[in-house]
Amino acid sequence: MRIAVDPSTDPADYGFSHQLRVRFAETDAMGIVHHSRYLPMMEEARVAYLRHIGHPYQSIRDEGIEMNVLEAFVQYRQPLLFDDIVDVHTSLATIERASFQMAYLLTVDGAIRATGVTAHGCVTPAGRPTRLPQWFRDLPTR
Amino acid sequence: MRIAVDPSTDPADYGFSHQLRVRFAETDAMGIVHHSRYLPMMEEARVAYLRHIGHPYQSIRDEGIEMNVLEAFVQYRQPLLFDDIVDVHTSLATIERASFQMAYLLTVDGAIRATGVTAHGCVTPAGRPTRLPQWFRDLPTR
Amino acid sequence: MRIAVDPSTDPADYGFSHQLRVRFAETDAMGIVHHSRYLPMMEEARVAYLRHIGHPYQSIRDEGIEMNVLEAFVQYRQPLLFDDIVDVHTSLATIERASFQMAYLLTVDGAIRATGVTAHGCVTPAGRPTRLPQWFRDLPTR
Amino acid sequence: MRIAVDPSTDPADYGFSHQLRVRFAETDAMGIVHHSRYLPMMEEARVAYLRHIGHPYQSIRDEGIEMNVLEAFVQYRQPLLFDDIVDVHTSLATIERASFQMAYLLTVDGAIRATGVTAHGCVTPAGRPTRLPQWFRDLPTR
Repeated sequence: MRIAVDPSTDPADYGFSHQLRVRFAETDAMGIVHHSRYLPMMEEARVAYLRHIGHPYQSIRDEGIEMNVLEAFVQYRQPLLFDDIVDVHTSLATIERASFQMAYLLTVDGAIRATGVTAHGCVTPAGRPTRLPQWFRDLPTR
Repeated sequence: MRIAVDPSTDPADYGFSHQLRVRFAETDAMGIVHHSRYLPMMEEARVAYLRHIGHPYQSIRDEGIEMNVLEAFVQYRQPLLFDDIVDVHTSLATIERASFQMAYLLTVDGAIRATGVTAHGCVTPAGRPTRLPQWFRDLPTR
Repeated sequence: MRIAVDPSTDPADYGFSHQLRVRFAETDAMGIVHHSRYLPMMEEARVAYLRHIGHPYQSIRDEGIEMNVLEAFVQYRQPLLFDDIVDVHTSLATIERASFQMAYLLTVDGAIRATGVTAHGCVTPAGRPTRLPQWFRDLPTR
Repeated sequence: MRIAVDPSTDPADYGFSHQLRVRFAETDAMGIVHHSRYLPMMEEARVAYLRHIGHPYQSIRDEGIEMNVLEAFVQYRQPLLFDDIVDVHTSLATIERASFQMAYLLTVDGAIRATGVTAHGCVTPAGRPTRLPQWFRDLPTR
């Protein structure tokens, strides 16, 4: 396991936050958000973070770089419900030569619902590992 | 609206059937399968039909043909539930020069759950409409 | 087929609009949004419309009313792409005693991408058809 | 992090295997299966495992027990592609008083694609933690 980050449960430890609202289509027959649906929420926050720092994901793809997901981890603490307004706190946790990890904290009205980590590798469109662009390696981690 | 097919509710009117089992991830907070999840089931049956007639979807894509979905219609009659074993009865309803329609009947233990129709256009990878291959135009409709 | 509405392609014919952004998770291997993913977008707009008129969907469920999807129709005109900002124009098309239909027009930067219709039945939690609440029957259609 | 299992990459270390075929709807614009779609595959295998040992998930729910997902981890090694026939090797990794962990290995034609772990807690329908049934605690782990 590559993931070695223990995501903080304090929103102040995250440098960026993205808000979204739970869709009915994301719930399951237990009346809560299905556990697989947290990953697209974290992805949406990751994409919003890249846009926020001036490097929209599509522009990165246009540069010939894909950011593969190598690993994903989610800890479900309290269920998300239909129509919840979720703050997905996001930070860049670690940066290596050709990979990085991001941490996530999901809250609703300030109450903790879940944490997560994703590990990404930088690859060419042909799938060959490649270095992260310099601007990315210069980003602040926390 | 291009779709003008009224799908039969008699399984005998369909030339092919594909069986699948409802996943928990396909249910929603009403305790039933979410209405958007019927389209991937119909797609799975369509793909199984093409494999059955010796033209797997990937081989069609490899020939440089995509089968875009132009329209989709679903009628929900009785809900599908978690773990239901669903028979997706499938038939080729109409074939035109560059488009075709497929009809679907979903049953569980012989009881009707839903019907549907999809209309497809034949396009090149660049998205330009193109004629259906001759083998496709020779397929029997019903 | 219950759906008899031909959705307008003029945004001015819709009384409400909801904006959303396409998630990467909604795309498929053709590089476009998967055709099944339009229904959750239309559902999100429907839920936003009910919130807008002061009757959040959850409050309707709390009144003991479910709004089943009876039928759904989508016409795909131009593909939606990752990161597109989509305006889902929404209107109440018809209201009957215990059912109603909604029409949708999806545009990106004013350009038409898709239209759709959903037909809904009003049922008790036990699944028995019931009349729409009076406030609903008094809503304007167009 | 509760998950402390390092899933084996040897199919022989798993006591159960479930086969499924990748749906087109599970792919994304990178042309591979979206990373969030592995969790429903692992869930499908878990449900199949419980059916296999004579305790279908629905019968467990009928006993008044839900098996919440507390944590999930996936390691993506080689992408899954549309139409791949996937063997989801599954084993019960650990059993505690009110929780358990399952390990997964996904292979295609014997080649490793992904591993995963899910941690589950046993709760009442009201969401209160409760002991695992005795038959469950007697199951073999490996």
